[in-house]
Amino acid sequence: MDSATTRLLQRFARIARLEHSSTYLSWDQMVMMPPGGQRARADALAELASLAHALLVAPEATDDLARAEQDDTGDDALHTARLREMRARWTDATALPSALVSARVLAGATCEAGWRTQRPANDWAGFLVNFRPVVALAREAAQALREAKSLGSPYEAMMSLYCAGDDPVRVASLFAELKAALPPLLARVLARQRERGAPVRLPGPFAPAAQEPLGRELASRLGFDTERGRLDVSLHPFSTGSRGDLRITTRYREYDVFDALQAIAHEIGHASYEGGLPQAWADEPLGASRSMSVHESQSLFFEKHLFLSRDFQQAFAPAVHAALPALSGFTAQDLWRAQTGVGPSLIRVEADEVTYPLHVMLRHDVERALMDGELSADDVPQAWDDGMRTLLGIDTQGNYTDGCLQDIHWCDGSFGYFPSYTLGAINAAELAAALTRAQPRWREELAAGRSGAMTDIREWLATHVWSRASSVDAGTILRDAIGHDPDPAALLAHLERRYVDEAY
Amino acid sequence: MDSATTRLLQRFARIARLEHSSTYLSWDQMVMMPPGGQRARADALAELASLAHALLVAPEATDDLARAEQDDTGDDALHTARLREMRARWTDATALPSALVSARVLAGATCEAGWRTQRPANDWAGFLVNFRPVVALAREAAQALREAKSLGSPYEAMMSLYCAGDDPVRVASLFAELKAALPPLLARVLARQRERGAPVRLPGPFAPAAQEPLGRELASRLGFDTERGRLDVSLHPFSTGSRGDLRITTRYREYDVFDALQAIAHEIGHASYEGGLPQAWADEPLGASRSMSVHESQSLFFEKHLFLSRDFQQAFAPAVHAALPALSGFTAQDLWRAQTGVGPSLIRVEADEVTYPLHVMLRHDVERALMDGELSADDVPQAWDDGMRTLLGIDTQGNYTDGCLQDIHWCDGSFGYFPSYTLGAINAAELAAALTRAQPRWREELAAGRSGAMTDIREWLATHVWSRASSVDAGTILRDAIGHDPDPAALLAHLERRYVDEAY
Repeated sequence: MDSATTRLLQRFARIARLEHSSTYLSWDQMVMMPPGGQRARADALAELASLAHALLVAPEATDDLARAEQDDTGDDALHTARLREMRARWTDATALPSALVSARVLAGATCEAGWRTQRPANDWAGFLVNFRPVVALAREAAQALREAKSLGSPYEAMMSLYCAGDDPVRVASLFAELKAALPPLLARVLARQRERGAPVRLPGPFAPAAQEPLGRELASRLGFDTERGRLDVSLHPFSTGSRGDLRITTRYREYDVFDALQAIAHEIGHASYEGGLPQAWADEPLGASRSMSVHESQSLFFEKHLFLSRDFQQAFAPAVHAALPALSGFTAQDLWRAQTGVGPSLIRVEADEVTYPLHVMLRHDVERALMDGELSADDVPQAWDDGMRTLLGIDTQGNYTDGCLQDIHWCDGSFGYFPSYTLGAINAAELAAALTRAQPRWREELAAGRSGAMTDIREWLATHVWSRASSVDAGTILRDAIGHDPDPAALLAHLERRYVDEAY
Repeated sequence: MDSATTRLLQRFARIARLEHSSTYLSWDQMVMMPPGGQRARADALAELASLAHALLVAPEATDDLARAEQDDTGDDALHTARLREMRARWTDATALPSALVSARVLAGATCEAGWRTQRPANDWAGFLVNFRPVVALAREAAQALREAKSLGSPYEAMMSLYCAGDDPVRVASLFAELKAALPPLLARVLARQRERGAPVRLPGPFAPAAQEPLGRELASRLGFDTERGRLDVSLHPFSTGSRGDLRITTRYREYDVFDALQAIAHEIGHASYEGGLPQAWADEPLGASRSMSVHESQSLFFEKHLFLSRDFQQAFAPAVHAALPALSGFTAQDLWRAQTGVGPSLIRVEADEVTYPLHVMLRHDVERALMDGELSADDVPQAWDDGMRTLLGIDTQGNYTDGCLQDIHWCDGSFGYFPSYTLGAINAAELAAALTRAQPRWREELAAGRSGAMTDIREWLATHVWSRASSVDAGTILRDAIGHDPDPAALLAHLERRYVDEAY
């Protein structure tokens, strides 16, 4: 290996150690830290971020990168990929002037702090005062990124931060296809539900302490190893950490025992991906997870295709009955039905699998128009209401709390993230179909609770997704795994099979 | 303020942020982290230590320190103290080459990780493999420190890291006095116990979950605020963190409910000192706790003089009865008796107040010989066994688990720390006597459970000890608080009063 690359690898290893520190200190902040620690922790995290940034943009790093690229013969695809990923990290870090970065952090923190009281107070006017500068600064950042990365539009530049490699023209065409096909599918699902009669309603309350052992049992069955990770409780479920020390959280709701379990399955998908990245590349950009559209495919695979399948519910029901005797009168089929009700609703995070993509389309349309200058911050509520009427037939006029103020993402200017949820859902459906081609009996084996069934599934994902890290782009990972470009037809077929045919 | 000092304060604030990071990542490592996280965490902690070290020893810091010292007129004692403490930190840091600092952190983390399984497995041979480099690196550090600080011996240099300002010649003479006086005192105590008849034995087991609320109740009564701190469980109780986010741990033993409570009281003493340091000096060396001999005086004050007093036990007994009904047949006097039995034993942390200093003398002798090159790492078990026979009449041959592997301190090369326990015991006894002169009714008020009694005691300690931070040396803090130099006579008188006279 040339000496410039060796020096770069040492530099990125130091950055990785600082990022390790930030990762677990942020986890502590959200899961363990008492309120009195807030200020000192914010200062420490800012210091770590600034040290990591300084290491990345140092003149020596810039020189070494240019030298290594110049010396690259192109004979070793992995070496070229290694440098490409280093360059991408460097470009993202240098594209924005540091004054703009600071201004965005400050505006984002102000907007998010206000949002915590403005959302419950339905105070759009108050929110707008803080939101206008967030949008203006995000547009400025999008322009700078677009130039630095030679991309087609400001929104594409923002999307590239989360879903590098997902071509926005293709994304727009996938989304158009879904927009056309989902409403008639939804109508068929609702008709099927009406035929079936009253939905299953489960009793409550169940104390968190009673739910917790069941959560641990689920984590263990999904292959989550507590010798190499932790399961805790936080306000919003999340996953963080890396191989050897994966940290997932959930929350226990007294009147919805499956909420916590679905969150555990979802976060285990994220954690399994991070845990399955190759150890050999752990400290360099080449070894990072590929993109949020791949990440969400893993979380949705574990949540929707494994946990929520009737097969898994079949095998898991005895554990539910043992942990929560008040549910022992409900069959596996009942428990599955209770979790698979479908219907248009106001809140994205509570939406079912069929309507969820429509919530995402709405946000995608609004944030694209915001970034590309076709919509002003002031006009978001009107655009939101129009979208909700068109896509879900719901009136949100004047209801900001459960309308355009419901998500945290836009507060700090994270425009371009939302598409990854639906790209992930498409990818997850494709991966499930490919798994069925590779291991035709996986559903039956899950249902039968065959020991080793989960190991086989995890190994298939490890081979086709996790182990590839950032060595190739997202499109290549998916094409190699499923044999073609991901197509919304896979997601539509999956939804039809589950919610109309009730096949799994 | 001159510009060199201003720059130094900014530099030390950055160092404080890195130290904040290391502090809570170390807490996580001991309390939360799964085994699989060990290697990455050790790497990250080494990186943070090396960054903090680099900031401290940078040429700009060295120049600014010299300039600020030159400009110091000596008219402002606090300013002079501020620079003195910065210089002391700089000297401790520059005495050691940074490669040695990193090597010690890494070797310490490795040794401690191994110790967690080697101790229960009685695996001295396995431990020795990791311990040899820890000793070798500590000796190297001790030599370098001795030269930089012009001290008399390597061991004195190591002690100076924990008990700066405690003159080792004076310490040796205090210890000699105790070694002479303790055995006859112990004989009188044992005779008194024999007269009194069979010791009180409490029933068990009590599940940790049943003990935990009582632990929280105790923490609250001793003034520990969970909005500004946490109480958790770890293998070995400890205290860390700073104002706003103090973290203490304990462990719950099924057959000894008071073990956990004593540990909680002890760690709250440490945490209260850290929490009571002046906020205005939080990010600079001037604001640090003074020394471990002062620190241990606070933990022992809370454990031995507050919690273990018959007066506090009187007020606390109803809470014990309510939490653990199986103990309701035991009076406050019974509970106090059950905790104040005296007798030679294997384990330092379980030793009673009378024999504890003898455990410390043993360790002091072994670690002094280790550092001064008179003993090799390989010969520690033999030296340990010799010491235990001479000082406490106990055979430890072949029992490493309860012998020389029992303490965590030496794993990371913290040689020179142990004396601070007994210096702390002397200081605590002196402070209790001084408190009695200042607030003659404090014991009665504790016994009566007067609301505000604990606040008054904490305020006295805050004024006389905590608020002084590192503005003056340990001797001055103690002299100002108690009116004379600390004398072992105070500890001996306390032990005589409690264990022979049974006065409190």
